[in-house]
Amino acid sequence: MEIEIATVGGYEEVGRQMTAVRMDDEIVVFDMGLNLSQVLIHDNVQTETMHSLDLIDMGAIPDDRIMSELDGEVTAIVPTHGHLDHIGAIPKLAHRYDAPVVATPFTIELVRDQIADEDKFDVDIDLQVMNAGEQMRISDQVQMEFVNVTHSTIDAINPVLHTPEGAIVYGLDKRLDHDPVLGDPIDMKRFREIGREGDGVLCYIEDCTNANQKGRTPSESVARKELHDTMLSLEDYDGGMVATTFASHIARVSSLLEFAEEIGREPILLGRSMEKYTGTATNLDVALPDNIEMYGHRRAIDQSLERIMEDGKENFLPIVTGHQGEPRALLTRMGRGETNYDFDNGDKVIFSAGIIPEPTNEGNRYQSERLLKMQGARIYDDIHVSGHLSQEGHYQMLEALQPQQVIPAHQDLKGLSGYVNTANAFGYEVGRDLHLTRNGNIIQLTE
Amino acid sequence: MEIEIATVGGYEEVGRQMTAVRMDDEIVVFDMGLNLSQVLIHDNVQTETMHSLDLIDMGAIPDDRIMSELDGEVTAIVPTHGHLDHIGAIPKLAHRYDAPVVATPFTIELVRDQIADEDKFDVDIDLQVMNAGEQMRISDQVQMEFVNVTHSTIDAINPVLHTPEGAIVYGLDKRLDHDPVLGDPIDMKRFREIGREGDGVLCYIEDCTNANQKGRTPSESVARKELHDTMLSLEDYDGGMVATTFASHIARVSSLLEFAEEIGREPILLGRSMEKYTGTATNLDVALPDNIEMYGHRRAIDQSLERIMEDGKENFLPIVTGHQGEPRALLTRMGRGETNYDFDNGDKVIFSAGIIPEPTNEGNRYQSERLLKMQGARIYDDIHVSGHLSQEGHYQMLEALQPQQVIPAHQDLKGLSGYVNTANAFGYEVGRDLHLTRNGNIIQLTE
Amino acid sequence: MEIEIATVGGYEEVGRQMTAVRMDDEIVVFDMGLNLSQVLIHDNVQTETMHSLDLIDMGAIPDDRIMSELDGEVTAIVPTHGHLDHIGAIPKLAHRYDAPVVATPFTIELVRDQIADEDKFDVDIDLQVMNAGEQMRISDQVQMEFVNVTHSTIDAINPVLHTPEGAIVYGLDKRLDHDPVLGDPIDMKRFREIGREGDGVLCYIEDCTNANQKGRTPSESVARKELHDTMLSLEDYDGGMVATTFASHIARVSSLLEFAEEIGREPILLGRSMEKYTGTATNLDVALPDNIEMYGHRRAIDQSLERIMEDGKENFLPIVTGHQGEPRALLTRMGRGETNYDFDNGDKVIFSAGIIPEPTNEGNRYQSERLLKMQGARIYDDIHVSGHLSQEGHYQMLEALQPQQVIPAHQDLKGLSGYVNTANAFGYEVGRDLHLTRNGNIIQLTE
Amino acid sequence: MEIEIATVGGYEEVGRQMTAVRMDDEIVVFDMGLNLSQVLIHDNVQTETMHSLDLIDMGAIPDDRIMSELDGEVTAIVPTHGHLDHIGAIPKLAHRYDAPVVATPFTIELVRDQIADEDKFDVDIDLQVMNAGEQMRISDQVQMEFVNVTHSTIDAINPVLHTPEGAIVYGLDKRLDHDPVLGDPIDMKRFREIGREGDGVLCYIEDCTNANQKGRTPSESVARKELHDTMLSLEDYDGGMVATTFASHIARVSSLLEFAEEIGREPILLGRSMEKYTGTATNLDVALPDNIEMYGHRRAIDQSLERIMEDGKENFLPIVTGHQGEPRALLTRMGRGETNYDFDNGDKVIFSAGIIPEPTNEGNRYQSERLLKMQGARIYDDIHVSGHLSQEGHYQMLEALQPQQVIPAHQDLKGLSGYVNTANAFGYEVGRDLHLTRNGNIIQLTE
Repeated sequence: MEIEIATVGGYEEVGRQMTAVRMDDEIVVFDMGLNLSQVLIHDNVQTETMHSLDLIDMGAIPDDRIMSELDGEVTAIVPTHGHLDHIGAIPKLAHRYDAPVVATPFTIELVRDQIADEDKFDVDIDLQVMNAGEQMRISDQVQMEFVNVTHSTIDAINPVLHTPEGAIVYGLDKRLDHDPVLGDPIDMKRFREIGREGDGVLCYIEDCTNANQKGRTPSESVARKELHDTMLSLEDYDGGMVATTFASHIARVSSLLEFAEEIGREPILLGRSMEKYTGTATNLDVALPDNIEMYGHRRAIDQSLERIMEDGKENFLPIVTGHQGEPRALLTRMGRGETNYDFDNGDKVIFSAGIIPEPTNEGNRYQSERLLKMQGARIYDDIHVSGHLSQEGHYQMLEALQPQQVIPAHQDLKGLSGYVNTANAFGYEVGRDLHLTRNGNIIQLTE
Repeated sequence: MEIEIATVGGYEEVGRQMTAVRMDDEIVVFDMGLNLSQVLIHDNVQTETMHSLDLIDMGAIPDDRIMSELDGEVTAIVPTHGHLDHIGAIPKLAHRYDAPVVATPFTIELVRDQIADEDKFDVDIDLQVMNAGEQMRISDQVQMEFVNVTHSTIDAINPVLHTPEGAIVYGLDKRLDHDPVLGDPIDMKRFREIGREGDGVLCYIEDCTNANQKGRTPSESVARKELHDTMLSLEDYDGGMVATTFASHIARVSSLLEFAEEIGREPILLGRSMEKYTGTATNLDVALPDNIEMYGHRRAIDQSLERIMEDGKENFLPIVTGHQGEPRALLTRMGRGETNYDFDNGDKVIFSAGIIPEPTNEGNRYQSERLLKMQGARIYDDIHVSGHLSQEGHYQMLEALQPQQVIPAHQDLKGLSGYVNTANAFGYEVGRDLHLTRNGNIIQLTE
Repeated sequence: MEIEIATVGGYEEVGRQMTAVRMDDEIVVFDMGLNLSQVLIHDNVQTETMHSLDLIDMGAIPDDRIMSELDGEVTAIVPTHGHLDHIGAIPKLAHRYDAPVVATPFTIELVRDQIADEDKFDVDIDLQVMNAGEQMRISDQVQMEFVNVTHSTIDAINPVLHTPEGAIVYGLDKRLDHDPVLGDPIDMKRFREIGREGDGVLCYIEDCTNANQKGRTPSESVARKELHDTMLSLEDYDGGMVATTFASHIARVSSLLEFAEEIGREPILLGRSMEKYTGTATNLDVALPDNIEMYGHRRAIDQSLERIMEDGKENFLPIVTGHQGEPRALLTRMGRGETNYDFDNGDKVIFSAGIIPEPTNEGNRYQSERLLKMQGARIYDDIHVSGHLSQEGHYQMLEALQPQQVIPAHQDLKGLSGYVNTANAFGYEVGRDLHLTRNGNIIQLTE
Repeated sequence: MEIEIATVGGYEEVGRQMTAVRMDDEIVVFDMGLNLSQVLIHDNVQTETMHSLDLIDMGAIPDDRIMSELDGEVTAIVPTHGHLDHIGAIPKLAHRYDAPVVATPFTIELVRDQIADEDKFDVDIDLQVMNAGEQMRISDQVQMEFVNVTHSTIDAINPVLHTPEGAIVYGLDKRLDHDPVLGDPIDMKRFREIGREGDGVLCYIEDCTNANQKGRTPSESVARKELHDTMLSLEDYDGGMVATTFASHIARVSSLLEFAEEIGREPILLGRSMEKYTGTATNLDVALPDNIEMYGHRRAIDQSLERIMEDGKENFLPIVTGHQGEPRALLTRMGRGETNYDFDNGDKVIFSAGIIPEPTNEGNRYQSERLLKMQGARIYDDIHVSGHLSQEGHYQMLEALQPQQVIPAHQDLKGLSGYVNTANAFGYEVGRDLHLTRNGNIIQLTE
């Protein structure tokens, strides 16, 4: 069987991920993502109304024109989880292919939302749910399996294509977590089996976001423990307390909800993306409380904050957007005094999030914290663990899968240099079985 | 009552801590520490055989000649815990004063060890045990109380002098930990009482080691959780595994011992200070297993490592000295290939310790890790939480104690600038009720 | 004579500098500055139309209400140079005092501009020119002298008040430069005389912006040398070249103009502040070429860029605003493609400026460089030296002046900790003769 | 013609550089270097008495066993300049090949010294001098040319092999300097010619030490200007002054000698490598003063320092070894008080050197500066420019040479990632015409 991999997008950067695997006549596409920072660097850009070619020129979505060089038909479009850099380009690009989007339930719901927001194209795409552990027939010779993984959102999987030449494992994005708070642990047993059954793994594509980080990314349960420790230590505080985190990080939001109750505060989710992600999770019945209060529209948020002030802010934990200090997010607006939530000296603000390391974010977050401190707030920051593997996770994945070929992704050369060192320890060599690729390349695996 | 505080040592630096409080005719001395880095910067210095005046000139021990300016008698010498920067100068200085050393049981045992090692002076000092929660009469008018605190060693307390003018709280060193793994949580209830009873707190002396750190130092239970997560993730590894941590950090050592058993490895403590601290803790019956194997002398260590290699290193977890990459510590020697422990590719080394932030340590640690990696070892580093308060801990202590006067300690001006900001939030002002002092100063609190 | 110093503003921060010295009944005010970052952190704030009390509340201008506690009349308002953090509050505050603004010619012209822009108050202030080296009678007993210093703008001085109790030297802002490219070297000879004549120096107020920088700030002639080296190395490049620097840094602009000619390019100054500062300097006949082209208004800038593109950008060096990556500055707009200047691959952009170290600036500058690189531009950055003393400059100033009392300014405690160490080397002690003050304090020097 | 390049050493690291180019039957070897840090990480290693195979195992010298896979005879061994990482393995490896060492005069003398120090092997190697600008016949079809370049030592060249298939340019190490203080500017004119004559450049091997540095490495004349500015600013100081720099940096040493005279101090070079490199330069008549005093042996150094103290240290400028804080170098020993040079408060120490960025060096330098400061010395550091190209230098080299193939060297993948970005700007792609190689690889250029 002839197998080629087109590294369409996300191979020199984080963002706008897209990969196509051609196996003879069948093509499976993994992810169609958006690089939001390429959008935000411009002023006043509304992606919803933009044409895909303009977004490609901006570097915001994958340049899928390379697909015409692959001689086959797209059978499925498979986003691995619901983050924007994996699903954000679906409304712009997916309709060009006559293929369903196949994903886990939570991811499918988020794709549905994305498509609903789209203004430019009339998008009519078939959405198919498939769960971790399940398989799907791609062709006579190829099966696709979803292996459960753990990430900073729920319902993440790594798709595996079982071909006559061996398995192709698409490893974006994950952390190696045996105690992920919500959902099942990463299925290392299955990865080890795949590495040893049949012809083993022909090719492994890896998430190198943290490839230069030493050691091991801790489990979500460690972040939960620290969050618990922090919030309990503030149990006696009888003033305002506000928390922020990634809206899509349902496990973290769930911990925040739970601990808020434990210290006697009513949690309220505020902000557009809080409502979107948590609302979606609630509808899917993902072990969240039934009756979470959440508001996404400006007016409803304002009313909720007003009620909090009236009823006594010591009784509430608003969980809000703005963890990166985004200038227009709710927490930043609260810091700027633009809402009717007033901070008093000593009020607590919990950032259950790290700063995504980029000077723009660092500048925004600095401004946001400075505004909050000018109002007397006390900051508890970086109560968080990453959603991506560090070097020892990469080491363990290579040990489990023993792939014949490896393709690191999701970073520029500097960012993935640590991955190359890790792979070298197993004897992989750049240019032989370790492929440093770029956007728009095609790698021929078998002939 | 006339009250003066002499900030003898440790007020411009970490190390060689010493403070004297004169209340009319009675003086209580807190800590007599050693600044080891001032010793190590020189070649081949043996402190055991050196005269105190030479050590004072080197900046290694407190310059206690300022004590002659205090018009009173020393009633007690009170080290707050057993770290060298708090007890290391006792053999050199304590015998000049006709006063007992009063401390918690574990600290007393470590002081006893220190004195036994002393070669220069014939030291004959009265050692008195006093437990957290207990009180001791200093004079007709003054009582001393030990309040239980949490730190990176066990049996740490903050002494409080109850005087007619209010309480003097000596706050070095601590973290605000409600779940410290070994021992009781920090006694915040008692601190809050002290802040509110009688005349409240006249003066508070604070540990500013981490005063420029934002947020809250996590509980030891968070480090334990991460350590557990890490070690369990390596449960299936059937090669060598080595751990290192602070020998005096009995709670951490205890977690390492426990998790080693949990993953089916026999823990063995190796290295001179491992034997010293853990041996002392075992003798005191501090919730450690009865039968820990530990070796401190070179020959016994060599034999133990030989046995590990013979019996199969996959069955053992050597817990060794060398967490800062000290050039002569066991782990560094293992990395350099000077012992009979052989690393294979993929063997694991766990640094359950942070790097104490100083370029010398960073250079040493880098060399040590480089040696280990040259032998194929995989590094898990920084599985640790600090033993010192961060800014929000300082905030909570000021809120609990409401002291009239504050003296930050244990840092130079840059290091404690964050503390001044925190204290400013309560209205304290430098030069009025917030004293930026130096070694060798006397601060008059009442006349 | 009774002498007090009110440290009104700029003593915990860079920005909104203001200091008042009362000598019996006479008061001299040094600087009335604006902290622009306190303005920019809010959205859409127009300082020109705001009331001073609101600006005080924002932390943007000095809170001069403390002045009512000084029992005397303001005789003169003396800005030391023309930067906004030294003159920006004059239109808001100066009219409250019945006193002239006294400054060097270039500074006076910039004050005049500031006042002309003011929309809120009708400002009618007497502006008096006084040159470096000249003296002015403040009262029977007090003379004011201007000593020539070197800074990152021209015509900077340090005012000295000669009182019967000794001299008061106001040392903000300066670098110790013996070869400043434009203007005279720093007058160290005069400082040394002042330190030794009569009663010497009673008090010295020092610019601590760079107090944590080791070594010596290099001379402007070193930056000029590096700029020359860089531009000459690009002599053969026949595409676009753009430079940016601080508009008020007349010496640097002058070097850029000169080297542009040397490599056969016509320099054009573009941007509002380029026109303002260089235009002011040209009117004063400050050794700049007669016929510099400069445009400050949007339409004129656009036309100029259009002409550059038409005539061939290889013949021009636009010198533009935007060295900090300010989002609305010209260079950033050029990077965003909002002007008709097109970058080709390989075009050169020279940042003859450092990043003022603050995450906001770093974020802005990162964005600006990213935009420029996306268009193919090559970046030459950090061709610059600071305008402020580093530690060895502080050391030399203390050696020259031998002041009895020292007041460090222009930084928070962390920022000036390096100054305290330097002063300690001469025996100064915090709280005795080294005053760590805050905004709104009064320090009594003599009674 | 069949052309292969063996990247023997120095392709994943700085140090132990060695490259072999086979052109049909003829092989030319560029550099045979030593990685000193791999030696120093062990205790008490004397390379002079060690066998080459042991040094290869330590990673200290190139593993030249790969040479047996090249089917040809070594015609010449060509070190490009005299630094240890380019010549240090010659005594261990060169005698295996029946070929002369061909280099510029200064380099040849340093190779001669290296060989004389060798204890293990009887080394008998033919040393041939060839100057920049000259050519040498390698075979009927191949000429070797030396192109003059500029680096942090004198007499550096880039060898070029003119083959029927185009030129092979070996580009290690250099800076692009048009005003290098000593010697001629870099010969960019010749590089541009080589890029355009005949078949142009077949392959370019580039020095990527600074490939992640933005902008342009300044000229040595900029460092000289800053050194002049610093030393002149200290002209009036009448106490001790000590300088340190790279001993092999003859241009810098020359500037120090000159400026010492200018401020009325007698310069004396002290330390073993100071004597070695400057002595060698003096013998070659390289524009250094005739009568420089220099001492390399311990006793002579001690006597010299004693005389300095007796005659008045205000009259001297000792220029000493120890710029990286090496624990046994002279400056560190002076800091530790092990010599008879006494520092007084205010004495000046000038580090005309950067810290080579590695934690070990940073730790050593920190210790050294701390020792000096404990004695009252004032530190002027980092008066230096690098000897290696930054990104814009790489850009200009690629523009000049327009090579068909590029091989970046002298860094690991992270270190050279910036080079890949720069090369991408010209359309080079990893794996096609941009070769990311490792030690021990062979790259076939033509068949």
